Amino acid sequence: MGSATISAVADPKSSIAEERKTPSFPIRELTYWIDGGKRVTDTKERIMLELERDPLWKVSDHPNLTLAETRERAMSKVRRLADLATARPLEETMLRMTIVSVVDPGFWTRFGVHFGLFFGALQGQATPSQLGYWMEKGALSMQGITGCFGMTELGHGSNVAGLETTATFDEATDEFVVHSPTLTATKWWIGGAAHTATHCSVYAQLIVKGKNYGTKTFVVQLRDTKTFQLMPGVNIGDLGKKMGRDQIDNGWIRFTHVRIPRSHMLMKHTKVTHSGDVIEPALAQLAYGALIQGRVSMVSDSANVAKRALTIATRYASVRRQFSSGAPGSVETKLIDYPIHQHRLLPLMAQTFAMIFTAREVSANYEKLMGVLSDLGNQSKGAAADEAIKELKETHATSAGLKAFCTWMCLNIIDQCRQSLGGHGYSAYTGLAQAYSDFAVHCTWEGDNTILTLQCGRYLVATALDARKGMPLPANLSYLKAAISKDGSLSAKTCKGNSAEQVSSLDTLKAAWSSVAANAILNAVRDFEAGLAKGLSKDNAYEFSSASRLHAARMHTYTYLLHRFVAQVDQSPAPLRPILTLLAQLFGAHSAVQHSGEFLQSGFYSGAQIETLKGFVNFACTEIRKDAVPLTDAFGYTDYVVNSPLGRYDGDVYEKYFELVTSLNPTKPVPYFDSLIKPLLERTNETDSGPELEIDQEE
Amino acid sequence: MGSATISAVADPKSSIAEERKTPSFPIRELTYWIDGGKRVTDTKERIMLELERDPLWKVSDHPNLTLAETRERAMSKVRRLADLATARPLEETMLRMTIVSVVDPGFWTRFGVHFGLFFGALQGQATPSQLGYWMEKGALSMQGITGCFGMTELGHGSNVAGLETTATFDEATDEFVVHSPTLTATKWWIGGAAHTATHCSVYAQLIVKGKNYGTKTFVVQLRDTKTFQLMPGVNIGDLGKKMGRDQIDNGWIRFTHVRIPRSHMLMKHTKVTHSGDVIEPALAQLAYGALIQGRVSMVSDSANVAKRALTIATRYASVRRQFSSGAPGSVETKLIDYPIHQHRLLPLMAQTFAMIFTAREVSANYEKLMGVLSDLGNQSKGAAADEAIKELKETHATSAGLKAFCTWMCLNIIDQCRQSLGGHGYSAYTGLAQAYSDFAVHCTWEGDNTILTLQCGRYLVATALDARKGMPLPANLSYLKAAISKDGSLSAKTCKGNSAEQVSSLDTLKAAWSSVAANAILNAVRDFEAGLAKGLSKDNAYEFSSASRLHAARMHTYTYLLHRFVAQVDQSPAPLRPILTLLAQLFGAHSAVQHSGEFLQSGFYSGAQIETLKGFVNFACTEIRKDAVPLTDAFGYTDYVVNSPLGRYDGDVYEKYFELVTSLNPTKPVPYFDSLIKPLLERTNETDSGPELEIDQEE
Repeated sequence: MGSATISAVADPKSSIAEERKTPSFPIRELTYWIDGGKRVTDTKERIMLELERDPLWKVSDHPNLTLAETRERAMSKVRRLADLATARPLEETMLRMTIVSVVDPGFWTRFGVHFGLFFGALQGQATPSQLGYWMEKGALSMQGITGCFGMTELGHGSNVAGLETTATFDEATDEFVVHSPTLTATKWWIGGAAHTATHCSVYAQLIVKGKNYGTKTFVVQLRDTKTFQLMPGVNIGDLGKKMGRDQIDNGWIRFTHVRIPRSHMLMKHTKVTHSGDVIEPALAQLAYGALIQGRVSMVSDSANVAKRALTIATRYASVRRQFSSGAPGSVETKLIDYPIHQHRLLPLMAQTFAMIFTAREVSANYEKLMGVLSDLGNQSKGAAADEAIKELKETHATSAGLKAFCTWMCLNIIDQCRQSLGGHGYSAYTGLAQAYSDFAVHCTWEGDNTILTLQCGRYLVATALDARKGMPLPANLSYLKAAISKDGSLSAKTCKGNSAEQVSSLDTLKAAWSSVAANAILNAVRDFEAGLAKGLSKDNAYEFSSASRLHAARMHTYTYLLHRFVAQVDQSPAPLRPILTLLAQLFGAHSAVQHSGEFLQSGFYSGAQIETLKGFVNFACTEIRKDAVPLTDAFGYTDYVVNSPLGRYDGDVYEKYFELVTSLNPTKPVPYFDSLIKPLLERTNETDSGPELEIDQEE
Repeated sequence: MGSATISAVADPKSSIAEERKTPSFPIRELTYWIDGGKRVTDTKERIMLELERDPLWKVSDHPNLTLAETRERAMSKVRRLADLATARPLEETMLRMTIVSVVDPGFWTRFGVHFGLFFGALQGQATPSQLGYWMEKGALSMQGITGCFGMTELGHGSNVAGLETTATFDEATDEFVVHSPTLTATKWWIGGAAHTATHCSVYAQLIVKGKNYGTKTFVVQLRDTKTFQLMPGVNIGDLGKKMGRDQIDNGWIRFTHVRIPRSHMLMKHTKVTHSGDVIEPALAQLAYGALIQGRVSMVSDSANVAKRALTIATRYASVRRQFSSGAPGSVETKLIDYPIHQHRLLPLMAQTFAMIFTAREVSANYEKLMGVLSDLGNQSKGAAADEAIKELKETHATSAGLKAFCTWMCLNIIDQCRQSLGGHGYSAYTGLAQAYSDFAVHCTWEGDNTILTLQCGRYLVATALDARKGMPLPANLSYLKAAISKDGSLSAKTCKGNSAEQVSSLDTLKAAWSSVAANAILNAVRDFEAGLAKGLSKDNAYEFSSASRLHAARMHTYTYLLHRFVAQVDQSPAPLRPILTLLAQLFGAHSAVQHSGEFLQSGFYSGAQIETLKGFVNFACTEIRKDAVPLTDAFGYTDYVVNSPLGRYDGDVYEKYFELVTSLNPTKPVPYFDSLIKPLLERTNETDSGPELEIDQEE
């Protein structure tokens, strides 16, 4: 101890500058490749600058706002974005919303409830004349109408068919009567209901002549658009504080015999005539489209939020120093130079790239598929329609798995990055605590993750069973072919070589994941069939196999992510290919090590090969570490978007963190010194042993 | 769709009542067993009632308080607890704090900073006369003095030896000069500094006659105790909002040449004389004691918080219904009846019991060890001292691993339980969002988890190397014996039988985990030696092996948890033994399936045996599900402590959730209708194409 000397202090700015000296790839080119071209990058940069310069869009003080201030600030920004949304090209609006989803996720939700959910319901479920009617009333531009989306109820979330709200047709007046029969029928979590919306797209049981036709959508006016007074029979309350996204005013709504015109039911699919005839649609699956879009967009969201988290954690790790391995008095070591810190962050970096590239490919596929379906129109028969519906089902199932595992992956990335900041991760001003709270809801809404994984797993089991009967496999499940042909026995594919190059090549990793995914699906089939053999119903046999079904969905989704990642690497510009290849290998290898049991059980890798793979993970971390900061630069977020003093481009973390904290929390006298602290410090212990009793003296 | 009918609604109260009809064990007896006897349970119940009846202790409205209100509310409770802490027996005070740590973790920290950290530093590091002096000044009872704990700095957390604050001895005045030389030397995260503390135990480099003796502790007065004005040279600021625990006022402190008497250095261990002689202690390890106590207490905290999370999630799952597997119109299925939901919650229940019983045993062992050390006094030589120091080292390492993996386990339990509530988990009023934010810091403070796991791993590697040289193994590592004796080759232990009984018996599971832990430690030894073989220094070889070292610490800690759990099961009253045995089996089996790769690689289980083990996990979940609600009852938390309408004992979740939300958020007119919403709705698009230019007309 006697010789201990305080460590020398290194300048944080030069600590990060040296990280940028020799990137292995052209940073700007990677940004273009991630964004989808220079034009997109330029537009995003223009939007980031516009937001940064607008005082309304200040976000660094968010932690210090009260709930009321938070909501008012958010509302004040709605108008500007609504005007831009109608005035500017759609592509630019979408990019703006992408950036806003990272900068201010709660605002993004408040805005999205109107444009995405309420107007989206009109677009997807209204007839052309209905859509025209609502657009003329200002439903697109928020001129006259602000909308919310009334699906979830207090007692009913995932099971939309089980909603209790009713819309009963009254032939006499040509109206529907919308009613909440019970407390659990109360519409709950309705974003925008508490403070913002004039109208609501209400999901309710359609009841005509005493018969229930299931859940349909109805536009119900909530408030007078001039006075904002609640309409007769409508009661609304505020759900108050949430875990995150307090920018949006979620509320509850109860309907008490509220009458709306028949034409306020959205009738693109099911129609109700004046005389009470109900005409049901030929092609119910088309309604899947909107669901898929929401899920696909959450893969992008996961990627975009993960980019920010890793920018903060990686840059801080390149500046923060702790412990010295050299002589006393030497400069402490950067966190990023510790192998364990590389292990904490760099596999998450690889996951983020997997999500970036998968998001891009599934978005493109989705757009293509929607084009095909739109061309088909209502034509529900024929080979083209069959093919499209098959693809729709596949996309529906795959997007369910992707939504679940990517949102979980991103939530984990945020928290791991936050923990990697040490104590400073617990400050509200370093960005990731709030990012976690804001993001967490992504695992629940638009389909609870666990339920989505089971949907995906059910599709995988059903597809395997169909394939066994000779039906062709969709392209993304072609890996099942070899396994299936062997009459249900497990795939015997193995890794041929033992060298690090052989066990960790992208071809080997793709084969490994395909083989293990096939295995997992066949295990779920086995459990499902065991359930049937026990005499369970089909549904109960699926429940019985749910653990292995969830697992099959996980293995399939990781396999899908790896394949999409590799496909993008293959198409990438040559100068980017080495670093992207290494990231793809790290994604596949690290995930395989995390699930080594499955790879050993399937026999693809031996125990020795798994050890070699672990060695490759170490190697890849060491290599990617050299490019860690350049990779965050390539994400292309400005300091404004990163919104964390620890994630600054210039590395000047301590000065700017101190400045931010002190400017937001100016020193003031302790407000309760006189009332609470002084009396505490100056109190004496009053003790009371009671009067002396006569009877005691007599003894 | 035509035949869809709304599902029948079941009464939540009878849904939960039926769960309590046939528990397999006497609930009350399990409560006594968990608490450590009827007397403890009775005391806890008395304390819970006292808190519930005290209006100051209302906690259901916490989500709606501002930061300023939150802090003032917390301060208002300090006095009552300070009086009780001195007036009532220590055991009762400890139980009260245990309950408070669950009811109001932020307050617990505010109170604990004075009693645990500041006063704890005096107890642990002051000489008897120093301790007497500070107690006379009111340091124990907060009469005259409120304390905070000044260790962490803006630029220095885990590396205490690297702190920059200096305390330089001035022989001329017999004073120390305490100084923050740089911005990064600013004391940071100091709980109580912003608003509460008059004094601080400051960690600073002791510099005497130009020589640095390393980090020691000094009591520095921050504020005048009568006026609360800052002392000369002391600057303090507020760190503002945090992820959680906003009840405590964390601040920063900068010292500018602050002079304190020499006697304000705590001199139990190192002493400085008037003439500047520095006398260093013989037995430096004794300072470990306080560290260990903090870690051990976090195992209890993890268990106590996990109990609350599981009470909420399990009771809600027994009431909440979603989807119907029967005929249309039939009652929906309880969440807890879905196998996947059992898989989500019941392994977490098993983990919670593992932590409960481990916490109890390590606390008892710690007390015993401290007693031995205290009897030894400063005697640093001889067999007894050697033995005690060896045990201290072992306890230090094991407690490091336990602190890390139990806090991570609990954080995961909270979030999994929250997600299992679906959308309602995102409300601030259902309890688990805040529980997560409050608990998260446990993974960082009192030793960053990752660093602690590496400390534990380093001890394991060193112990294995010592054992290879013939040194005896500590009892908790006796499982290394077989592996070591084979000269470093891997343990060849295997599971003998293939039946579910054989693969999942407690004896098999203990052997399985011991074998795999031994394996993991030897792998870390192998990597460490590979580092040495590469010519790395010892420290760098440890860094090189950090991934496998962390893994070894995980495997050892899980093995330790399983062994402690089983030891408690073996001692438990006969009527409790069947359910506790099943829970211990589920803990061991589920954790093994989660890490199946390791069990397959070590060869303990074959692939077929792992499949059998998975089948056992399914079976155990189905069995424990029958007792799920009774198990939460046995945790013994009143509705006040559970503090979530979804976790109510009587199952009346919807009515009480609605009541709470509406009472805390009464309906009011939208505050910004006139200023923001009306102008939005009524705006027209002003377009401006500019004046017609003459030059254009000329064309």
